[in-house]
Amino acid sequence: MQALRLALAQINSVVGDLAANSAAIVEWTVRAAHDGANVVVFPEMALTGYPVEDLALRPSFAAASVRALTELATALDKAGCGDRIVVVGYLDRDAEGSRNSAAVIVDGRVTTRYDKHSLPTYRVFDEARYFAPGSCLSIVAVNGVRLGVVVCEDIWQPGGSVPAYATAGVDMLLCLNASPFEQGKDEVRRSIARRRATEIGAPIAYVNVVGGQDELVFDGASFVVGPDGSTWGRSPQFVEHLLIVDVDAPAAPHPDAAEVPGWTIDRVTLPDAAVTGWQRAEPYLAEIASTEEQVWGALVTGLRDYVHKNGFRSVALGLSGGIDSAVVAAIAVDALGSDAVHAVSMPSTYSSDHSRTDAEEFASRTGIHFRVEPIADMVACYVDQLHLTGLAEENIQARCRGMVLMALSNTSGHLVLATGNKSELAVGYSTIYGDAVGGFAPIKDVPKSLVWDLARWRNKSAADRGDIPPIPESSIDKPPSAELRPGQLDTDSLPDYDELDAILFRYVDHDQGFVDIVAAGFDAAVVADILRKVDASEYKRRQYPIGTKVTSRAFGRDRRMPITNGWRDYAALDEV
Amino acid sequence: MQALRLALAQINSVVGDLAANSAAIVEWTVRAAHDGANVVVFPEMALTGYPVEDLALRPSFAAASVRALTELATALDKAGCGDRIVVVGYLDRDAEGSRNSAAVIVDGRVTTRYDKHSLPTYRVFDEARYFAPGSCLSIVAVNGVRLGVVVCEDIWQPGGSVPAYATAGVDMLLCLNASPFEQGKDEVRRSIARRRATEIGAPIAYVNVVGGQDELVFDGASFVVGPDGSTWGRSPQFVEHLLIVDVDAPAAPHPDAAEVPGWTIDRVTLPDAAVTGWQRAEPYLAEIASTEEQVWGALVTGLRDYVHKNGFRSVALGLSGGIDSAVVAAIAVDALGSDAVHAVSMPSTYSSDHSRTDAEEFASRTGIHFRVEPIADMVACYVDQLHLTGLAEENIQARCRGMVLMALSNTSGHLVLATGNKSELAVGYSTIYGDAVGGFAPIKDVPKSLVWDLARWRNKSAADRGDIPPIPESSIDKPPSAELRPGQLDTDSLPDYDELDAILFRYVDHDQGFVDIVAAGFDAAVVADILRKVDASEYKRRQYPIGTKVTSRAFGRDRRMPITNGWRDYAALDEV
Repeated sequence: MQALRLALAQINSVVGDLAANSAAIVEWTVRAAHDGANVVVFPEMALTGYPVEDLALRPSFAAASVRALTELATALDKAGCGDRIVVVGYLDRDAEGSRNSAAVIVDGRVTTRYDKHSLPTYRVFDEARYFAPGSCLSIVAVNGVRLGVVVCEDIWQPGGSVPAYATAGVDMLLCLNASPFEQGKDEVRRSIARRRATEIGAPIAYVNVVGGQDELVFDGASFVVGPDGSTWGRSPQFVEHLLIVDVDAPAAPHPDAAEVPGWTIDRVTLPDAAVTGWQRAEPYLAEIASTEEQVWGALVTGLRDYVHKNGFRSVALGLSGGIDSAVVAAIAVDALGSDAVHAVSMPSTYSSDHSRTDAEEFASRTGIHFRVEPIADMVACYVDQLHLTGLAEENIQARCRGMVLMALSNTSGHLVLATGNKSELAVGYSTIYGDAVGGFAPIKDVPKSLVWDLARWRNKSAADRGDIPPIPESSIDKPPSAELRPGQLDTDSLPDYDELDAILFRYVDHDQGFVDIVAAGFDAAVVADILRKVDASEYKRRQYPIGTKVTSRAFGRDRRMPITNGWRDYAALDEV
Repeated sequence: MQALRLALAQINSVVGDLAANSAAIVEWTVRAAHDGANVVVFPEMALTGYPVEDLALRPSFAAASVRALTELATALDKAGCGDRIVVVGYLDRDAEGSRNSAAVIVDGRVTTRYDKHSLPTYRVFDEARYFAPGSCLSIVAVNGVRLGVVVCEDIWQPGGSVPAYATAGVDMLLCLNASPFEQGKDEVRRSIARRRATEIGAPIAYVNVVGGQDELVFDGASFVVGPDGSTWGRSPQFVEHLLIVDVDAPAAPHPDAAEVPGWTIDRVTLPDAAVTGWQRAEPYLAEIASTEEQVWGALVTGLRDYVHKNGFRSVALGLSGGIDSAVVAAIAVDALGSDAVHAVSMPSTYSSDHSRTDAEEFASRTGIHFRVEPIADMVACYVDQLHLTGLAEENIQARCRGMVLMALSNTSGHLVLATGNKSELAVGYSTIYGDAVGGFAPIKDVPKSLVWDLARWRNKSAADRGDIPPIPESSIDKPPSAELRPGQLDTDSLPDYDELDAILFRYVDHDQGFVDIVAAGFDAAVVADILRKVDASEYKRRQYPIGTKVTSRAFGRDRRMPITNGWRDYAALDEV
């Protein structure tokens, strides 16, 4: 028999904007109440946004979060939702430090709260820096269903609060999350939740943040899984969404335990809630998208939110006619609309004819703003006065382009986009203060081989819909070149990108050593050369603009290498 | 009666360079042995350098560290130091993860090892990300003295391994450290060590790293304190140094405990060691320098090591005639010698006459390389082609200068120095890709008021020695201006720097909120304006070059704020 209607509110908070986030929580609760939900669950730190980073250490911000929570409870009551059970993540602070907390709000007040127990401190997470771990279980019983509250990492680590809840006695776990997107992560999340649901013999409702925050993008993809591994509902990725799931009274509930060693237990029994939706809600099961569609969604969402949340309305970029800038421009069109995209072709004396025509072709297919600013005069001014040749002359071209874009940004308020990809960034094939100029680098974390896949996927998906494919085929097919000297090609000094990306995947994403990579079948001299380039480029990468993270390990806060670093793994070259 | 001669080897390791660090450890051990030392103690992670950051997560690097440790033991024996007890920090790794470890080497092998127990995860430290905590005490007895080994944070936190050693029974603690410099830290360290020595009733020998590593600079200042709070010896700051201290047999040793709950104990009793220096060593007590001298030493060391450890031999910078670039140039002269410093005066149409004459005067006083490259033609090229005015025209001047410096760097291999100070960086008064250009920003963490203090101190210390003061008096005395438009002065849009720095100190270094700062007596409108500027500049600061950290909280890994951030503390302005 149906006991409860549950709503998972997958919302897009703005870090720090307590007023806007509160208003959104009220709005989504009203919507959920209208749909008959008794329990509305919001993501981890939905009230403050995630991650707040060092704001967590500012007492005035923690106090403001706690105050905003109290005001939220009042606002929910005033909005006519006082009879709904609202579970919301926020920042708390007590004598032991700041807390990554979840509050259960009902009848205009906080009835119980839970502090996250397992604090991830790896990859992009620094929670041991910010939060004190909790040791109290919060169990809310309503209509005969005992709901336990956990936060994100709590279900990833063995032990901790999940088995403690099972011992204490719960019929369902509500798990609040801020789990960033990366390729393949969606399936890993469902798999870990299924395992825990089976272990504790109770369903798990998993609600995730959606939206971009600096280099992170959260994909949502909230879901509910049963103890038998079945999926009771699943939200789409990259959009705000309300997932409605009806929950039955437990057939044979585990009894309550009087105590659980190492934990205190806060049990709250609420008055019976009316179940208004007597007809069982149809399970909503969003389709699972292809890798390219998921990554594209992440890149579009990451860029859109970075632009809008930072108060920009338009972007500018150099459109070279090559694949990277074309893909970045296509992402920008999908994120912001073509009228917000300002592309500049900046030919030099070394630019090929197709550079400009391919750029023009992209602009005419997509309707973005397009202008041509030749850089020959500017370059000549430096070359002549300073007598530049070689690398200095190559770099000055890229830098003149960067300055043109920044001047347009200063004049018209565009955010400049850097168009570099992960592969070239890894090996240092970018000019600092040149093509690395920009406030955001959309494909910073996309390996070159995936850039091509995305271009083909985006064109095909347009064609499938009967739309014009945005990216000129010759931008996809021509051999990549920086065009900083006559006849220059990327392959002059790099292996082909499939091989390069495979080596980078091992070295950068998986911390493999030189010997491991060579043992996997790659040529030792090629590996040593690439590793040398990666190690030498740490400084450039530190100064590169942030960009949306889509792989398992991105350059940025995710991978923190010393700049001054005498370690040369490939010194083992002699030993192979 | 003298039982042992102890040597604290305050050395300057290079992160990752296991071969060079091993060789240095052997060399300093030979020197200590020559001085009659029985026990030679090296700093925390002296073998790998500190901090190794994500290198700690690379299994191949941890394996190389362990292998290098074994080879070091052999090398020490071969160098005739097998009979010395050598304590050295290194990176270990086992099934639980990586370890911040200390090994005790004697007779060509590792006789016992200790894993750091307390792992700092705040400010610049991320050790919970990298290391598993240890729970084993390592006690080495020689000549009747029981030596316990701890690492850095172990003495900062109450509880942990220090009281466990006291219970187990030790006569002295050897504490290996990598404690970065900040103003006033030296005294705090001695005070915490004195407190712990008193608590456990045994002396503590504290050996610290010296030298620069990216944004960190380690000052050394190693010491030994007795249980009565007395100082038995103290090393100078910012130089490699061997501190020799003779240790008596304990008068009334605490008995050994059979066990200590929560800890395992590894006890090693070594054969008697010969005490060769029968005459007691004179206590060496380095003088404690003034704040300005300490900060200057940190800045010089930080720059020198960044330049040399990264393989550069010279630096280039724009010399504007103002105080900031003059101080940076003076630091560079002290760090690298005047022949390695290449200064460029880059006058624009808005530059005052004294800009160039003051720059020339600095160059003639110090003997650095000096050239003049007017930027008027370059600026005109952009202004004319792109029709620039206002902010875009101001910024293009700074950017043309940045490009000139980078072109010289590409041509001659100089490392470019950015000359911005902490105050202007905090409020966003710098041009990205303009005056922010450079590979290192020596005074990035020096507030403007301290920049003036340092200039006066440096000139006075030269005069006191009978040398020519390097910095022209008019560079110190003139009102600060960016000279990007006619008659522009910093005070047009900022309060005076003493007030600005006092507000920044509270907001940036101490995480105070708007209300707290206003309550301390500052004008609410001024505070709100400054906080708004700081919050708006997060993006620029992320792209700024690294620089030596000298205050309690620097922009960089020390302070990690979200870029996209809707929190506006000064929204409370209405409530005041």
